[in-house]
Amino acid sequence: MPLTPDQLAEIQAARATPRPTLRAVSEGMEAHLYRAHPVLDHGFIRVIDYMGDDAAIVQAARVSYGAGTKHVQNDEGLIRYLMRHWHSTPFEMCEVKLHVKLPVFVARQWIRHRTANVNEYSARYSILDREFYIPAPEHLAAQSTVNNQGRGEVLTGEEAARVLDLLKSDANRAYDHYEAMLSQDGQQGLARELARMNLPANIYTQWYWKVDLHNLFHFLRLRADPHAQYEIRVYAEAIAACVKDWVPLAYGAFEDYRMGGVTLSSKAISALKRRLAGETVSQEDSGMSKGEWREFVEVWG
Amino acid sequence: MPLTPDQLAEIQAARATPRPTLRAVSEGMEAHLYRAHPVLDHGFIRVIDYMGDDAAIVQAARVSYGAGTKHVQNDEGLIRYLMRHWHSTPFEMCEVKLHVKLPVFVARQWIRHRTANVNEYSARYSILDREFYIPAPEHLAAQSTVNNQGRGEVLTGEEAARVLDLLKSDANRAYDHYEAMLSQDGQQGLARELARMNLPANIYTQWYWKVDLHNLFHFLRLRADPHAQYEIRVYAEAIAACVKDWVPLAYGAFEDYRMGGVTLSSKAISALKRRLAGETVSQEDSGMSKGEWREFVEVWG
Amino acid sequence: MPLTPDQLAEIQAARATPRPTLRAVSEGMEAHLYRAHPVLDHGFIRVIDYMGDDAAIVQAARVSYGAGTKHVQNDEGLIRYLMRHWHSTPFEMCEVKLHVKLPVFVARQWIRHRTANVNEYSARYSILDREFYIPAPEHLAAQSTVNNQGRGEVLTGEEAARVLDLLKSDANRAYDHYEAMLSQDGQQGLARELARMNLPANIYTQWYWKVDLHNLFHFLRLRADPHAQYEIRVYAEAIAACVKDWVPLAYGAFEDYRMGGVTLSSKAISALKRRLAGETVSQEDSGMSKGEWREFVEVWG
Amino acid sequence: MPLTPDQLAEIQAARATPRPTLRAVSEGMEAHLYRAHPVLDHGFIRVIDYMGDDAAIVQAARVSYGAGTKHVQNDEGLIRYLMRHWHSTPFEMCEVKLHVKLPVFVARQWIRHRTANVNEYSARYSILDREFYIPAPEHLAAQSTVNNQGRGEVLTGEEAARVLDLLKSDANRAYDHYEAMLSQDGQQGLARELARMNLPANIYTQWYWKVDLHNLFHFLRLRADPHAQYEIRVYAEAIAACVKDWVPLAYGAFEDYRMGGVTLSSKAISALKRRLAGETVSQEDSGMSKGEWREFVEVWG
Repeated sequence: MPLTPDQLAEIQAARATPRPTLRAVSEGMEAHLYRAHPVLDHGFIRVIDYMGDDAAIVQAARVSYGAGTKHVQNDEGLIRYLMRHWHSTPFEMCEVKLHVKLPVFVARQWIRHRTANVNEYSARYSILDREFYIPAPEHLAAQSTVNNQGRGEVLTGEEAARVLDLLKSDANRAYDHYEAMLSQDGQQGLARELARMNLPANIYTQWYWKVDLHNLFHFLRLRADPHAQYEIRVYAEAIAACVKDWVPLAYGAFEDYRMGGVTLSSKAISALKRRLAGETVSQEDSGMSKGEWREFVEVWG
Repeated sequence: MPLTPDQLAEIQAARATPRPTLRAVSEGMEAHLYRAHPVLDHGFIRVIDYMGDDAAIVQAARVSYGAGTKHVQNDEGLIRYLMRHWHSTPFEMCEVKLHVKLPVFVARQWIRHRTANVNEYSARYSILDREFYIPAPEHLAAQSTVNNQGRGEVLTGEEAARVLDLLKSDANRAYDHYEAMLSQDGQQGLARELARMNLPANIYTQWYWKVDLHNLFHFLRLRADPHAQYEIRVYAEAIAACVKDWVPLAYGAFEDYRMGGVTLSSKAISALKRRLAGETVSQEDSGMSKGEWREFVEVWG
Repeated sequence: MPLTPDQLAEIQAARATPRPTLRAVSEGMEAHLYRAHPVLDHGFIRVIDYMGDDAAIVQAARVSYGAGTKHVQNDEGLIRYLMRHWHSTPFEMCEVKLHVKLPVFVARQWIRHRTANVNEYSARYSILDREFYIPAPEHLAAQSTVNNQGRGEVLTGEEAARVLDLLKSDANRAYDHYEAMLSQDGQQGLARELARMNLPANIYTQWYWKVDLHNLFHFLRLRADPHAQYEIRVYAEAIAACVKDWVPLAYGAFEDYRMGGVTLSSKAISALKRRLAGETVSQEDSGMSKGEWREFVEVWG
Repeated sequence: MPLTPDQLAEIQAARATPRPTLRAVSEGMEAHLYRAHPVLDHGFIRVIDYMGDDAAIVQAARVSYGAGTKHVQNDEGLIRYLMRHWHSTPFEMCEVKLHVKLPVFVARQWIRHRTANVNEYSARYSILDREFYIPAPEHLAAQSTVNNQGRGEVLTGEEAARVLDLLKSDANRAYDHYEAMLSQDGQQGLARELARMNLPANIYTQWYWKVDLHNLFHFLRLRADPHAQYEIRVYAEAIAACVKDWVPLAYGAFEDYRMGGVTLSSKAISALKRRLAGETVSQEDSGMSKGEWREFVEVWG
């Protein structure tokens, strides 16, 4: 499933032959089209198609609000207003289609975002390639001692070596046996839909994934977040870099209001107001639980 | 809300300036871009943007099925296979965005299709135009005497004249009063979000509507059907004509398998098999209800 | 479409005959079942069915997190944690079905929430009742002078009287003509699907609406908000009162984190941190637009 | 992840304590509540909750169609009418929540049905149990020689023995190494979110899955179909058996119109009509492709 010479040639050919269109064109996104951005050891994301640009968001919003909005605000101001007030429908008017190659355990997390269209490579129909994700040494992390779903320090020395060895040898053995079970050399050959069950979750799969910009922002907010698992976060970051070139105004608003923003509960608002008034507030008299207080202090000191 | 000279000039300008793109281009659809196709007395549909073409459907299917499908089937065969076997995801890989102007009672039916993105003109924010749907004489139909949600013969003579007169005068009076309530001439002026409640369901609204091809086919199957209300059916037909130029192979398969197809129950299959074997089958011994039998005979005689 | 004596008798009968079930039962919600809570002048909401309770949310979360969560947190703490961290899936495990009677212009706004199931009374199939929303005098508001989609002061005196008179007389005339066009007394009678177009947007319709708790919270956040139009807000408030009795822990978390919470942009965070450090911050040096600054000052002074 | 004695005791307790409710109750479904129906070697499905019954479907349809439908048709006739005419919204008014334990490769196929709510056991947060799907000898099938995504004959003799041995030993070795990597005995212990990648696709996971009846029927139509992979089909069949007891009228209509029905293209209709008229039709003059003709002959001879 890596890009074959044939596929590379197809990409070259496609990129060599621009065609005229009357549709909205984003120069920033045209530069990305079809190009594979490497992620992890064998994965990639590449933009296959897109619909709309910053102006399309503004145009859709102005259908809703009528002529009144024409002269009131410039495009950036209007886009920031829409983002701040959670007006999601104008952002839904842009769409993007990606080709992604990713490990199965990442795909399992990704697919939980239901408001997208997906065509995945079928291991029922076809044979998977021998490609597995093996973490780079600096990402081979221990279980966090404070967070049930987080990582602690990087493994080192013998333990690291042993883990890498197990991951590699198990993956290869599983694939050898997958091939052996499929083989029709002197035997019937196990059905592909059964043989695939022997393959571990770090094998690579690939899919086409199509999503609108509003739902993509939601995906990025959760998956480009520092608390997301590293292996999906790097995909989110690679996509975010393309989105920034595609719709720079919308992406700027997203960064300011979503990625860089925080949500405060009414208890947190009270605590901050008391602090602004010069009071000292403790967890006990804030009404917050220990967990919430810890998160509050992380932001506000 | 009709196309203003400014909007017409914008359309001209946009159509006058093709730009290069590396994306999939459908020549058939480029010819439609931005152009308003009139529907009913004041409505229209026009294509604002699209993503993908017949080849994009094939490409997505081949991601799923792998290299194996490459040489097996030509594009048309594969698209027909996908349609026949209800493989919906490759059709979801195409997307279209329309600008539609339509009466409110049509919009209320249309919006029930939930898997689409919508930005509607806001009568809370802006003032609606004085434009109402008044049926052409040949579409002024009586209530069907056999079908609770259908039409019978066309009204004629005095009754037709009286109906048209009532529709026109009520619409105009309602709009006069809408304006009078809104006016800030010597009075405070009622809030727009309240004044709009005086307007009847044949006033025109407009929206941007974005949908993927699979869900659009579902919409067309229901709304371009002879049992659909005439006033929404003409919109479906205008859209269908664009889709046919956009993705001719997919549209051909849709026509054959969906628009021109029928679904048979197991009881209907039995009845047909008995007929093919030379038997005469009656409603009583078919196991079908009277309603189902009537529909069966409509198709099979 | 009001509750008829027959319907009232059905409600009585249903409420008189509890049946045993092994499912999760919410005592608070049982008390609401089938009862009509009046809203506006002729509308209501009533709970027809529900699935799950606070414990069902916790149970679903614990499927995800495994045995580890069993003893760590009590139910309230876990529910608040889920809400704070936008873990939406456990809240999706509760569902509610409502019967709602509401003016058409409210229904048009409501239906924009797409992730719900709806069965609406069909004016294509049946004849609507003569019932219109006429605002109470204290809700007859002028257009806001500062907000394009808001209300200003209440209308008074002659203007108020004139508006009420127009709304009432136009509604009644429209309905008289609707009946006259439908009538088959000495004429064919216009098709119901056409006659309905004469009816104004303040006529009442009704529907069954079924939604999961996560999406209901989203609806309530937008529609029970002070910026929502009054006529939909009162429906949201009536529903919220039932939800509070149904899932008191989840509703408490929703109130604290969503209804009473605010989202801060990275610029707003900076401004607040500078204030906490004793600095004075102005709009100009905050990086915020005038609009954002105004909203910021509304909360923080 | 099998049912522990604690869980079994909880089931017993829950089933021992019926509580009164005013909601719609399906006796047939009450008998299933919480009980685990075994599927494959370690899996199960069990009903956790449900909303509505056959009467609820009828009730929702009658909201739409008004009083007119009251006396026209009995419940079964109305439900069959709705199914025949693809009126999906009344079926959406019923909902069911299941607890399912299933192999990961089945879960991957299942999750592609997006219109459902899911809470899955998190292998990022918790440790998976040592339980793997190993096919029973009679389900150890060879690759089909005619269908890229199907099974042929059952493997026998040495080949069968070898496949079973590989599947078992690879699964156990992968799990041993999973445990060894996680262990904090004398080492840091690899993060759970990383260690899980060593586990093969036949390991069992579990989830809560909540879906409305319309979407469940769609799932059953595709997954209880003879062309579905055996390992997901048995889950669909176990669910179907519960649905039959829950909403017997709706299930009967589903069986007749969907499971037992066929869809004919306009070309297939023509071919059948010519046959009914006594003509002999061949593939060549039917206009159908070879594939479509083969499927046509399978049904009609």
